[in-house]
Amino acid sequence: MKLNEWLNSEIPHIAESLESINKSNFFIDKTIGFAGKESIYKILHHFRSALFPGVYDKYPIDENKVNIMIGNNLRTSALDLKDLIVKVLKNDGDNSSSIEDKASEIVVNLINSFPEIRNTLQTDIEAAYNGDPATLSTEEILLSYPSIEAVSIHRIAHKLYVMGVPMIPRIMSEYAHQLTGIDIHPGATIGDYFFIDHGTGVVIGETCQIGNHVKIYQGVTLGAKSFSLDENGNPIKGIKRHPNIEDNVVIYAGATILGGDTFIGHDSIIGGNIWLTESVPPYSRVYHSQPSPTIKNGNG
Amino acid sequence: MKLNEWLNSEIPHIAESLESINKSNFFIDKTIGFAGKESIYKILHHFRSALFPGVYDKYPIDENKVNIMIGNNLRTSALDLKDLIVKVLKNDGDNSSSIEDKASEIVVNLINSFPEIRNTLQTDIEAAYNGDPATLSTEEILLSYPSIEAVSIHRIAHKLYVMGVPMIPRIMSEYAHQLTGIDIHPGATIGDYFFIDHGTGVVIGETCQIGNHVKIYQGVTLGAKSFSLDENGNPIKGIKRHPNIEDNVVIYAGATILGGDTFIGHDSIIGGNIWLTESVPPYSRVYHSQPSPTIKNGNG
Amino acid sequence: MKLNEWLNSEIPHIAESLESINKSNFFIDKTIGFAGKESIYKILHHFRSALFPGVYDKYPIDENKVNIMIGNNLRTSALDLKDLIVKVLKNDGDNSSSIEDKASEIVVNLINSFPEIRNTLQTDIEAAYNGDPATLSTEEILLSYPSIEAVSIHRIAHKLYVMGVPMIPRIMSEYAHQLTGIDIHPGATIGDYFFIDHGTGVVIGETCQIGNHVKIYQGVTLGAKSFSLDENGNPIKGIKRHPNIEDNVVIYAGATILGGDTFIGHDSIIGGNIWLTESVPPYSRVYHSQPSPTIKNGNG
Amino acid sequence: MKLNEWLNSEIPHIAESLESINKSNFFIDKTIGFAGKESIYKILHHFRSALFPGVYDKYPIDENKVNIMIGNNLRTSALDLKDLIVKVLKNDGDNSSSIEDKASEIVVNLINSFPEIRNTLQTDIEAAYNGDPATLSTEEILLSYPSIEAVSIHRIAHKLYVMGVPMIPRIMSEYAHQLTGIDIHPGATIGDYFFIDHGTGVVIGETCQIGNHVKIYQGVTLGAKSFSLDENGNPIKGIKRHPNIEDNVVIYAGATILGGDTFIGHDSIIGGNIWLTESVPPYSRVYHSQPSPTIKNGNG
Amino acid sequence: MKLNEWLNSEIPHIAESLESINKSNFFIDKTIGFAGKESIYKILHHFRSALFPGVYDKYPIDENKVNIMIGNNLRTSALDLKDLIVKVLKNDGDNSSSIEDKASEIVVNLINSFPEIRNTLQTDIEAAYNGDPATLSTEEILLSYPSIEAVSIHRIAHKLYVMGVPMIPRIMSEYAHQLTGIDIHPGATIGDYFFIDHGTGVVIGETCQIGNHVKIYQGVTLGAKSFSLDENGNPIKGIKRHPNIEDNVVIYAGATILGGDTFIGHDSIIGGNIWLTESVPPYSRVYHSQPSPTIKNGNG
Amino acid sequence: MKLNEWLNSEIPHIAESLESINKSNFFIDKTIGFAGKESIYKILHHFRSALFPGVYDKYPIDENKVNIMIGNNLRTSALDLKDLIVKVLKNDGDNSSSIEDKASEIVVNLINSFPEIRNTLQTDIEAAYNGDPATLSTEEILLSYPSIEAVSIHRIAHKLYVMGVPMIPRIMSEYAHQLTGIDIHPGATIGDYFFIDHGTGVVIGETCQIGNHVKIYQGVTLGAKSFSLDENGNPIKGIKRHPNIEDNVVIYAGATILGGDTFIGHDSIIGGNIWLTESVPPYSRVYHSQPSPTIKNGNG
Repeated sequence: MKLNEWLNSEIPHIAESLESINKSNFFIDKTIGFAGKESIYKILHHFRSALFPGVYDKYPIDENKVNIMIGNNLRTSALDLKDLIVKVLKNDGDNSSSIEDKASEIVVNLINSFPEIRNTLQTDIEAAYNGDPATLSTEEILLSYPSIEAVSIHRIAHKLYVMGVPMIPRIMSEYAHQLTGIDIHPGATIGDYFFIDHGTGVVIGETCQIGNHVKIYQGVTLGAKSFSLDENGNPIKGIKRHPNIEDNVVIYAGATILGGDTFIGHDSIIGGNIWLTESVPPYSRVYHSQPSPTIKNGNG
Repeated sequence: MKLNEWLNSEIPHIAESLESINKSNFFIDKTIGFAGKESIYKILHHFRSALFPGVYDKYPIDENKVNIMIGNNLRTSALDLKDLIVKVLKNDGDNSSSIEDKASEIVVNLINSFPEIRNTLQTDIEAAYNGDPATLSTEEILLSYPSIEAVSIHRIAHKLYVMGVPMIPRIMSEYAHQLTGIDIHPGATIGDYFFIDHGTGVVIGETCQIGNHVKIYQGVTLGAKSFSLDENGNPIKGIKRHPNIEDNVVIYAGATILGGDTFIGHDSIIGGNIWLTESVPPYSRVYHSQPSPTIKNGNG
Repeated sequence: MKLNEWLNSEIPHIAESLESINKSNFFIDKTIGFAGKESIYKILHHFRSALFPGVYDKYPIDENKVNIMIGNNLRTSALDLKDLIVKVLKNDGDNSSSIEDKASEIVVNLINSFPEIRNTLQTDIEAAYNGDPATLSTEEILLSYPSIEAVSIHRIAHKLYVMGVPMIPRIMSEYAHQLTGIDIHPGATIGDYFFIDHGTGVVIGETCQIGNHVKIYQGVTLGAKSFSLDENGNPIKGIKRHPNIEDNVVIYAGATILGGDTFIGHDSIIGGNIWLTESVPPYSRVYHSQPSPTIKNGNG
Repeated sequence: MKLNEWLNSEIPHIAESLESINKSNFFIDKTIGFAGKESIYKILHHFRSALFPGVYDKYPIDENKVNIMIGNNLRTSALDLKDLIVKVLKNDGDNSSSIEDKASEIVVNLINSFPEIRNTLQTDIEAAYNGDPATLSTEEILLSYPSIEAVSIHRIAHKLYVMGVPMIPRIMSEYAHQLTGIDIHPGATIGDYFFIDHGTGVVIGETCQIGNHVKIYQGVTLGAKSFSLDENGNPIKGIKRHPNIEDNVVIYAGATILGGDTFIGHDSIIGGNIWLTESVPPYSRVYHSQPSPTIKNGNG
Repeated sequence: MKLNEWLNSEIPHIAESLESINKSNFFIDKTIGFAGKESIYKILHHFRSALFPGVYDKYPIDENKVNIMIGNNLRTSALDLKDLIVKVLKNDGDNSSSIEDKASEIVVNLINSFPEIRNTLQTDIEAAYNGDPATLSTEEILLSYPSIEAVSIHRIAHKLYVMGVPMIPRIMSEYAHQLTGIDIHPGATIGDYFFIDHGTGVVIGETCQIGNHVKIYQGVTLGAKSFSLDENGNPIKGIKRHPNIEDNVVIYAGATILGGDTFIGHDSIIGGNIWLTESVPPYSRVYHSQPSPTIKNGNG
Repeated sequence: MKLNEWLNSEIPHIAESLESINKSNFFIDKTIGFAGKESIYKILHHFRSALFPGVYDKYPIDENKVNIMIGNNLRTSALDLKDLIVKVLKNDGDNSSSIEDKASEIVVNLINSFPEIRNTLQTDIEAAYNGDPATLSTEEILLSYPSIEAVSIHRIAHKLYVMGVPMIPRIMSEYAHQLTGIDIHPGATIGDYFFIDHGTGVVIGETCQIGNHVKIYQGVTLGAKSFSLDENGNPIKGIKRHPNIEDNVVIYAGATILGGDTFIGHDSIIGGNIWLTESVPPYSRVYHSQPSPTIKNGNG
């Protein structure tokens, strides 16, 4: 009774107060909002269904149906994505009259690259198969490996990032992060045959460049050392802050490699929990020279 | 055929057996169960929709509709939450006749604090914007940052925790944990302008106190050293077990800070993978003085 | 306009190209696909609903209904699981005529073990209650602890693994991984009273053997040191690669224990962030003898 | 703006007013309400799925699965129906201690009669096949004939009616009415080989008795002439008010047959639009002796 | 294969052709479309839930919740309805600047009349109870009588019609028609204590006026005789074309009463299948003086 | 308790019994079943969405999207429909090797006729607008007239019927019947500018031929007089049994016109409730020359 009275009399004021705080802080009409986020998730779903028919949707056996469904998914998502790109470009300050054409071109380029992306993802599947002794069949990789979840989204998001699309690639990568615990910034460049084992807690920064045949374990950070501030004390955006990893490198669990000048030479192995802020030459083996832990007498 | 016979003849016994184990071990009728959990998730959704219209629901442009929807969401959730609080208080042994009034008062206090919570969350958004060089617009923080996901839930759950509500705040924080990999106990006190980058694996303990302008990276633990046992060997509940972090502190990835007496003085920087069980004074820079890792000759 | 023209004229070719890449790389008709994955998730849901009525579904108070619902869930899931097992055994190369009987027997064995699994899970709940000072009631463990989420799935998946079912247990364990950030290979053997606190980033390898009353914190890896390659440079599958943890061991956050010959003796405590690749005797206390971190003068 | 103000200030009063009218007029807590109605629809669905596997649900080809699914559907629906019966009996004034047993017995009797009901429905399908020159296969009857929709529901509802269950049979028959435009009161007794062609507008009253091999067309009413009033002017409930139709009768579209004493003798044919309030002997042919309609000269 | 080629090459042209036909024939951008129709259905649902809590939604027992839910439903629907009214008024040619105010006023008037509508509907429930010997309780009327379905929608739609709202009332009444087979034009004026038994096929025209305590059976038409054409041969809209039915009249199944000048005097009874195009005085009994049907000898 | 025992012990037998009755009576594996019915409903939805964008789906304003969506809907539905046609042709005994080609050709022909069907439906909309004085705008016809619901489905179903597709057209027409109460057999041939007012109870038989500009009211039957039986007493299928209605005819409510030789000449008007089994020449006016009903003195 008393609660209801309060709800009827006071809630309108609180609602108005929240609305007013929002209006002063946050230009909600300029964002893509919840609807845009949902739309991006749906587009990703359709794109991955097109790349791997049968893995993200109950696809029919009939090849004709698969073909038509891939086509339909790509067409619908292309138009939805174009609209979103126009919106985020506008919010980003692009007022050019050719913004529709620009967005269309981005979409065309992205979809044109899908056969290439699919071929690259095939190398990632092979890397997972070869890299994990627990795998008994290639089929289970697509159905149960977080690596392929995260990397398939990354390879799409990265294409958009490279073409200058704001915000959308980040929403895609954060979606992968939420699904897998693997946080790959869409800016990172990643070669073929890439595999992340277990994956939880992996962070790969925006300006990383990763070669071919690289394998990474859970909890690895490829991050920034610290970032330069401008005269106002704000971080300077857009400079190289994250390491390069050359071909055939393995990085074990929990290793941390930081800095834009840090290059891990090809065919190196970085041990678990290693903390590296400087480059190492090719063929390096970086082991933990940690002092033996103190082991108190086992007799209790 | 044979399987069906077995299913028809034996399953009833197994069902009975499972039911009987459950009855002896678990007082399911005293819990809020699956329905309660679902209800808490829905309440959280409505509350966050009220705090950030357009981010958690497809809100209309029309301001009048936004206003009415915030109000409706708050009213419905208020009553649902009140019922749940009454239930968990009763399960917790509260048999007072004023339990309905108590629960109502908690709900009123919580919702009254929403404008304040919203203002605080705005400082968290600003901290994220300033703290991450990869962010290009404030808009993308609300749509794609796990930090704001986890912290917005925490600030609601913490209010309930402080008012003595059992179980519900923990279900809320575990929901955030599941979404983001960030595990903040609802008991933790957290100041303004708080930002967690990447976030996976962060653990913040129940009795932590965190000041303003604190920034934390993935894999940081603010935990207990060990916990005191009572005469029966059970952990003593309710004593301060986790560190305090003062204003303007940065804690890099994988650092572990333990113990209820451990204070990190203001304006300190704690390096990555640091293991700290003792206090440090203000303005400290705690670096990893780990021995250089062994790097075997790169010529392989 | 131009985009639509492109969509109508070019998408059919891209769809055909993607279809053709898929056909050459991936024998989609031999997998269980998306539909199988969904089915496994549904089976897991029904099984856990049978083990803990009221926790995974809105179960009615009426005991008769609970009883019938458990039975119905088990019967439906039994047949669905049998079909899936037949399919994965066939994909795995089993062409024996008794494959249906074999799959039925596996299902019968699994469900027959449910009362035992339920009893074991009860010890896990008790371990969680005793092991976490922040828990105030046993009820909240089932509703909000990632440990019980992951371990309840593991105990089911492990039974299937032991009976030689391919792929399905891995899809189950990866589902748990996605929900909780805890990655337990279904091959791992785990005793009673097992508890993982917080859990994000925990990795437990395929050939681990874990005793009773073991407690593990977030970020712990029980992994392989490296794996032996066969003459072709491929990892040799099926040999013991992961450590054994005896009874009453506690392993703190971020510790890494590697190798198939590494045995952690009973009643030992392994400190946080410890890196261990060799056995320790019973009653060991393995502390971090790390050098004090460099703490620069706090006067900034 | 002004509308919002009104909504916030006035709606609480209108809500209170509506609530108060409801409370004084309608004992909502004594009914089964919307939830009960939904439950009855679901029970009907499960029952009809059990009677005709594959027609009301996507049933699997596998016979074992069909068998288990029928069983599960019957078990679940049995308990739901028992609860509803207890509720409506109580609302109807039954306060006996054996009400649970009574409801259980009704459910057992109903389900025990399902093989018999299924056999009878098979005669209805045959009647439809033989009675409609437009039918080319028996299969299309189950998938597209309103007659079988309505009659399959009636045969279930009638069993409940006969056993004295209030309200539930009426909700079932009104559900059929809504689906098909055929309104058969659950009290009506209907023999084998019954077929209604087209069906829209057919009304069959509570105390009708219909023999075997009867065929009825759209718009036929088997109704009451008028009903006797008691001393207070209220209709006397529970007396025979509707006609009997003996075996092998055909009644064409729009015919109206009224009265509890009106018997249509076996093997009769009642013409379209006929209005009959008196009995006719067996083998009657009742034609429309209506005067020729006036046909004005066709030259306009 | 060949079909797919055709689908890829020809469908774009057919799609373009359909789009172009639509554009030339139908100003889809000027209508409320599918979204508007869905919205009207939802508004009706909320309004009827507010009038009869527990009948159209799973309402909680708790009176406070009922109260808040009624309020929330009315507020949300008020704003949705206002938007729709603005849209249909504009489509109807209203370009006044005060169109928002006008729509708001209509909504306020409608909702203000809800207590009155609820009271009137209570008289309809009583009429159904008294008028149908097959009814055993008032509760079953709300759950299973098409009359109350159709009339509750009519009384809402009629209020909107009277206030000059185009299209929306018609969509409401056609929704009722689809649910029940009862087609009441929203323009019809209907008094208290109104009951339609069975109802299928009833048609009540736009300019009918029906008094209190009127009872109608299935298949009754209260229609227009013919309608006057203007000089262009088009029907003249907006003149009285349908009969008046005074208080206490009963009209039996299939009767047809036509014409705007046809008045059925109070306390009359119109027999089944009667065809009336002229007025009858109060207390009339209009029976079917049809010649006895030809009954051929029953000996077959 | 006792009920549960019965459910566990007896339900398996009843399930087996029902399964066995079904197997002996009904070749469920030869039908399209529930799944096929659902698929037909979905195809109809997509087809009507293609014919009237915005009326059956929330279509976007953007013309490019409308175009792509129409195309996608047609492509998907084309393949689904082809599969269903193959199935029903096979069930119907067609074992030719070219059955896939035949089904494809049917689908291509159907979709090729969509622009023509759309144009014809436009004439139906115009007929509705001109024929109903209560209509105030053409827009409301598509959103609220049962005539256009039923006729739009009929025009699609009829095309399939003409091409010899079994069962599917009947399921379509019965779907329309359920939605509207209008039962048009897919075999009926119907000209342009066709309008059915109110519609409930209308039945139009398989071999009817209806000209242009025909208008029909509720409850009209265009049926068979009786049907010829073959030597076994079964109805002879496939002969003309229903009347022809020439151009510009109006048939008022409840009229019944029967027989394959009955021709209603052009520009005729058939009065309400008329019963006609013989042809009438052009320009006829067929009025009800029924004797005045007996009207008993109005003084009661």
